[in-house]
Amino acid sequence: MNIPQSSFPRVIVIGGGFGGIALAKKLCKKDVQVVLLDKHNYHTFQPLLYQVSTGGLEPDSIAYPIRKVLQGYPNFYFRLAEVLRINPDIRTIQTNIGEINYDYLVVATGSETNFFGNTSIEENSMAMKSIPQSLNLRSLILENFEQALLTDDLHERDSLMNFVIVGGGPTGVELAGALAEIKKGILPKDYPDLDTRRAQINLVQGGDRILPAMSEVASRKAERFLEKLGVNVWKNIRVEAYDGKFVKTNTDTSFEAATLVWAAGVKAICIEGLDAKEFLCRGNRLRVNEFHQVEGFAEIFAVGDVAQMESEEFPNGHPMMAQPAIQQGQNLGENLVRIIENKPLKPFIYRDKGSMATIGRNKAVVDLKKFKFQGVFAWYVWMFIHLYFLIGFRNRVVVFINWVYNYIKFDREARLIIRPFKKQHQVSRKQPVE
Amino acid sequence: MNIPQSSFPRVIVIGGGFGGIALAKKLCKKDVQVVLLDKHNYHTFQPLLYQVSTGGLEPDSIAYPIRKVLQGYPNFYFRLAEVLRINPDIRTIQTNIGEINYDYLVVATGSETNFFGNTSIEENSMAMKSIPQSLNLRSLILENFEQALLTDDLHERDSLMNFVIVGGGPTGVELAGALAEIKKGILPKDYPDLDTRRAQINLVQGGDRILPAMSEVASRKAERFLEKLGVNVWKNIRVEAYDGKFVKTNTDTSFEAATLVWAAGVKAICIEGLDAKEFLCRGNRLRVNEFHQVEGFAEIFAVGDVAQMESEEFPNGHPMMAQPAIQQGQNLGENLVRIIENKPLKPFIYRDKGSMATIGRNKAVVDLKKFKFQGVFAWYVWMFIHLYFLIGFRNRVVVFINWVYNYIKFDREARLIIRPFKKQHQVSRKQPVE
Repeated sequence: MNIPQSSFPRVIVIGGGFGGIALAKKLCKKDVQVVLLDKHNYHTFQPLLYQVSTGGLEPDSIAYPIRKVLQGYPNFYFRLAEVLRINPDIRTIQTNIGEINYDYLVVATGSETNFFGNTSIEENSMAMKSIPQSLNLRSLILENFEQALLTDDLHERDSLMNFVIVGGGPTGVELAGALAEIKKGILPKDYPDLDTRRAQINLVQGGDRILPAMSEVASRKAERFLEKLGVNVWKNIRVEAYDGKFVKTNTDTSFEAATLVWAAGVKAICIEGLDAKEFLCRGNRLRVNEFHQVEGFAEIFAVGDVAQMESEEFPNGHPMMAQPAIQQGQNLGENLVRIIENKPLKPFIYRDKGSMATIGRNKAVVDLKKFKFQGVFAWYVWMFIHLYFLIGFRNRVVVFINWVYNYIKFDREARLIIRPFKKQHQVSRKQPVE
Repeated sequence: MNIPQSSFPRVIVIGGGFGGIALAKKLCKKDVQVVLLDKHNYHTFQPLLYQVSTGGLEPDSIAYPIRKVLQGYPNFYFRLAEVLRINPDIRTIQTNIGEINYDYLVVATGSETNFFGNTSIEENSMAMKSIPQSLNLRSLILENFEQALLTDDLHERDSLMNFVIVGGGPTGVELAGALAEIKKGILPKDYPDLDTRRAQINLVQGGDRILPAMSEVASRKAERFLEKLGVNVWKNIRVEAYDGKFVKTNTDTSFEAATLVWAAGVKAICIEGLDAKEFLCRGNRLRVNEFHQVEGFAEIFAVGDVAQMESEEFPNGHPMMAQPAIQQGQNLGENLVRIIENKPLKPFIYRDKGSMATIGRNKAVVDLKKFKFQGVFAWYVWMFIHLYFLIGFRNRVVVFINWVYNYIKFDREARLIIRPFKKQHQVSRKQPVE
């Protein structure tokens, strides 16, 4: 891997997501050698992936070169690599570019889509956890409309314009809202020779309310916003099978749809060597103590989606979102410095900054600790917060301009089929996790 | 294909490049039915592809949805389709989405990379004529540097950092200049643990000057600019073979390079049924008369790269560039209206607006009819002209902001490996023309 041994202790960080980057930033001016590994050479701002899928933003605006994040720190090394195995006994990790030893290891691998073992859904549905996946979905949506134009079979045409989104969390809600806006604002202009009013956007939620992690008023309001936009919200329904055409549920309701987006669950990405049952909680998360240490190892830590720090307030760990990952990365970064300097550690305390979701133009819901609000102001807050947390000045400016443009013009210009999806995935949609 | 028969004559336009779009715009308010076919759902601004390859621009900024160009014109139809065959006798064309008849047919298929039958080069080199191809090149360049970090074999490392660009036209010159700027401004910061001074950018030109279509002073100045940037300019050398590692030329000079970009020729994209030798000139161009009519057919026309209109001033047809395509498209559009209105046709007269190429920051060469100038002012003119001809207000703003940002910060932030190239093309780099 060609990383020189130095006199400083070596911290290996697996993953350049919110947690890994926040952690590395805390370490880069300290007397440690940091080796950051990621299978991409960029950080992905996952909360905006749905805007890439719906043509509102260009993919490059929500990606940021990891090398640039920590440019100019001489003890910092980035390697584009996939980690294959952790060997805790001898303190090394094996990767596709070789083996390397560590003094401290931070697992910040994040999460991937969880199909809960349902192969029919895994093989035929679309996921939206990475930029390539989001681009595939963007291509497929547009390819469907192009294809709908060509058929005289009304049945098939409806199916091509029928979108089923499974999962009523923020991803599902935001995607459903964006699709509804496309249906309203763009399809009639782009496809005047197609009756796009027949396009259907269905949001299917297993529980009895959408956005279950938010307040009840947020759920209620979000549902009303979605319905205003024309989204069909289905509650208390679980999707059980999908063959690429027919969506079977646990009730009498079923759908015929050429597109099913699965946003109904994530699981942590675990690595061989640290995947024994004793370490793992529900959803493959690694159980960690208040210092992010993986149970049983003083020198292995986990932050972000992959870490489950159980407490009275969070019996199942913190929510798998950007905020906990960032705060955990920062806390662990400071603690690693304390370890090296032989100072006492500070346990992690999560500061809940609230949560939010946007449904569409002028429509968002925000839950803060003391205030809960919905509507136009919430939408501005949502945009401001997302711009603030986006990495990179250029990205912020470009995203801002796209938003202003889309707002004024009721438009989304990135509706481009750069890499057609159907052609490349004619047999199965199952993709390597990208 | 589901296009209704109307009482208006039907004009089918194959290709949504500069020529096809310019033509369609002239027709869209007239009493004709226009069917525009393209294998992409977007128009590509080809002159800026090299900036996508080198991370300076996001691909979506130089693409524009074709459906949006002509939104709101009821007699206009776009179909995402590949044309398989033209049947001039029965006035129909066959496509992958069905057959359709025409009253008038405009071939505006443009051009593709010409490897002149050299399979070793075709299989192992990179081309840069479409957005997917440019993204592949972007990925490969970045993957090479990531890989160069990993090897202890100095020979291999040099080869990974050795770039050979074949062809001294605008594409080759602009790409070489951009790579040289990356070498200077970005590599040392991104790869502090790699001796990136050893990276080599070689521009290989068969003739005795680069930019042969421009004035001699432009050629001379461009060469000096490139040398200032550290590009090795090789003249009077022809590349004869490339196996993915070793570049063989017709002289004693050879290169060991993991990347060869082939920008040494284009050929028109011809379609079965209109590909008989009697119609074709050098480089597969269709011979047309001064009204763009393909020889022998009153109702088949060709514009842009695919058309060869021979005249005293242009014995081999007009240059295969955006300007002739746009002007020809406009002229033909007006002539088609005249045909339908039974008015006399106006022959095409090309107004040479000059040509230009940029080499790098503050460095461009411009040949106008009466003035030829080089340097900073030429660079501003180059930028202004390219922004002006870029389609779409949002694209212009985003490109402008990227340019300002890159200029001030000496940066190019789109250095992202979104779809790794090597992994997907381990055996051969030969790609379907995308």
